[in-house]
Amino acid sequence: MEKVVYLDNNATSRVAPEVRDVMAPFFDDLYGNPSSMHAFGGQVAKYVKRAREEVARFINCEPDEVVFTSCATESDNAAIRGSAEWGAPGERKIITTAVEHPAVLQPCRRLKAQGHDVVFLPVDHVGQIDLDELRKELAGTKDAIVSVMWANNETGTIFPIEKIAEICREHGATFHTDAVQVAGKIPVDVRKVPVDMLSMSGHKFHAPKGIGLLYLRRGTKAKPFMLGGHQESGRRAGTENVPYIIGLAKACELARLGMADEAVKLTRLRDRLEKGILETCPNVIVNGDRAHRLPNTLNVSFEYIEGEAIAYSLSDLGICISTGSACASGSLDPSHVIRAMGVPFIAVHGSVRFSLSRYSTDEDIDFVLEKLPPVIKHLRDLSPFGPDNDPTTYK
Amino acid sequence: MEKVVYLDNNATSRVAPEVRDVMAPFFDDLYGNPSSMHAFGGQVAKYVKRAREEVARFINCEPDEVVFTSCATESDNAAIRGSAEWGAPGERKIITTAVEHPAVLQPCRRLKAQGHDVVFLPVDHVGQIDLDELRKELAGTKDAIVSVMWANNETGTIFPIEKIAEICREHGATFHTDAVQVAGKIPVDVRKVPVDMLSMSGHKFHAPKGIGLLYLRRGTKAKPFMLGGHQESGRRAGTENVPYIIGLAKACELARLGMADEAVKLTRLRDRLEKGILETCPNVIVNGDRAHRLPNTLNVSFEYIEGEAIAYSLSDLGICISTGSACASGSLDPSHVIRAMGVPFIAVHGSVRFSLSRYSTDEDIDFVLEKLPPVIKHLRDLSPFGPDNDPTTYK
Repeated sequence: MEKVVYLDNNATSRVAPEVRDVMAPFFDDLYGNPSSMHAFGGQVAKYVKRAREEVARFINCEPDEVVFTSCATESDNAAIRGSAEWGAPGERKIITTAVEHPAVLQPCRRLKAQGHDVVFLPVDHVGQIDLDELRKELAGTKDAIVSVMWANNETGTIFPIEKIAEICREHGATFHTDAVQVAGKIPVDVRKVPVDMLSMSGHKFHAPKGIGLLYLRRGTKAKPFMLGGHQESGRRAGTENVPYIIGLAKACELARLGMADEAVKLTRLRDRLEKGILETCPNVIVNGDRAHRLPNTLNVSFEYIEGEAIAYSLSDLGICISTGSACASGSLDPSHVIRAMGVPFIAVHGSVRFSLSRYSTDEDIDFVLEKLPPVIKHLRDLSPFGPDNDPTTYK
Repeated sequence: MEKVVYLDNNATSRVAPEVRDVMAPFFDDLYGNPSSMHAFGGQVAKYVKRAREEVARFINCEPDEVVFTSCATESDNAAIRGSAEWGAPGERKIITTAVEHPAVLQPCRRLKAQGHDVVFLPVDHVGQIDLDELRKELAGTKDAIVSVMWANNETGTIFPIEKIAEICREHGATFHTDAVQVAGKIPVDVRKVPVDMLSMSGHKFHAPKGIGLLYLRRGTKAKPFMLGGHQESGRRAGTENVPYIIGLAKACELARLGMADEAVKLTRLRDRLEKGILETCPNVIVNGDRAHRLPNTLNVSFEYIEGEAIAYSLSDLGICISTGSACASGSLDPSHVIRAMGVPFIAVHGSVRFSLSRYSTDEDIDFVLEKLPPVIKHLRDLSPFGPDNDPTTYK
């Protein structure tokens, strides 16, 4: 592979060299099991303890509120299914949104099939929910479970998590947020924002794929999901993935120290990209809430052409972007997020996502702005549709 | 830490240098998401495909029957809870043994609490179940679920898995086996032994902690456990842990090629250790089925003293062993496995496990045989109990 311009960081990100380096000794002599009773395992347990403290510092919680998991999908499943198993079967109402990640939507759908009362709140054209609808759904409930993502993975739309958390508190509901996409991009402070459960994934902010975290506020009504040994104080069984736990802690430290400067840089680069696309390509719609959006994310719809075709064409040129989420790939349906926002039919199939990271450069943006417009023009020349031949009428 | 003699490989094992080396590029430039639609992710998907083929070769199944998980605890949970969720709630009877790993026992206990008919078969004094009892429990069932480990983690006792699988077939039951401890020690061939589901853990045979595998025979009646994206053909959601998948495949290859020779070496070393202990220490009982036992495992009870005291004393001398399993540590109760075997009270607290690996040497065994007898003598001198003062009478 020649030159690669990687703008698909919401799918996965490069492992930071600093993260790789701190993990190395744990693939070598420090292979003891932290649960073992001998000193050889005990020394590893000390490293895990320090890592837990660093992760806790990142989101401003107590170390004993951090549960290490294998990925955010596990964290989401553990939060949703673990809290649903607390109480009598089917007792707790579950309220979520139509634009959650599949790792939240699918457990909710299974619980619905098993008899739980599950509500999927709709979103408006920028991807925001109506807080009054949330209040209405919570009215009269006891011990409800609410799961609303902190920011959407496809559009970068940031939800008003502090307000949602307050509303949940008022109604005695347990509040979970999938915070995967905000990690390392905007500050997360669970003392300021009273969420009860929160999911993050290491590989979205330069730790490896295969490590996640579940924040569990003390006293949260949730049963463990992964059952077995005593690890993670009985909240997540299974031998600890020590190297990745150490790596995750380093990724948290790097994010904590670098986030403020990186957000400025990411916003500048992303805005340059957005402006450049709007100036050079006609019939483009920017998706999501531009007033409340992650600094690194740009989702745009190119009318009359297919996002897949754009992504493949750019891939041939060494530019990595995506349509929808990688977790939904394999499906030919257009993104459930873009559809839920009511994006017009002529644009819904042509949506693509650019997502930047700390390793993105001005040269990357220059390269995209050079290569993209001719690709769009070429695909439109091939397309049977256009402003004078709107496919909506064929629906 | 000075000299370390590591004889706790059933708890966790050293990452093989060959495994570490093949993982390295995936912590560097090969960081793409295998589910992404661009070529940068696609090249990673090709490596994952090859890894799946290598793992399939190791247990002689089809590549599409291999599901990568985060650990054997997840594999066990997915097998037990996933098959229990197939069918009407509580419909399927579950039959397991009293000596399973907590990753099987705990999901079974939760299902029992939720209304499933769950049976825990007892074991005899060498840790074997009575196959007629299994037949009796299966009689008249429809779609039962049976989970029996291939070999016990504490004693190394090997179960007659082929016969158990045949009995399950005769009764139309779905058969799961926790094969964590046999991986790389004795051959596993799922064409010869008709199990339906099988769990393994990378870190027990020189891959890292945090990767497991679940073999799922085509057509097995089990729902997915981890819900979300389309990964693993919809059977396990969550972004693939690519580096560890590559590492697991290398560990499988090393085990496949080296197992026959290693088993001879391990048996020789373990038997030297066993013989040496029996010759130098009085009042010792060997636990488990010596006629059907893993080549690397030795579980012995030193009467009248505590296993914890032995393990701590040896740890101070640089020798790593364990009492029971690391997954059960933190509990002060004696091992559920040793108790289930009916080991006499004066011996049950004094059981310890030595578990070897391909990296174990004659020098390791020499060192243990030099250091252990004085430790045992010293602890017995301190103990208020002995042949003339049997604590059983104080029970």
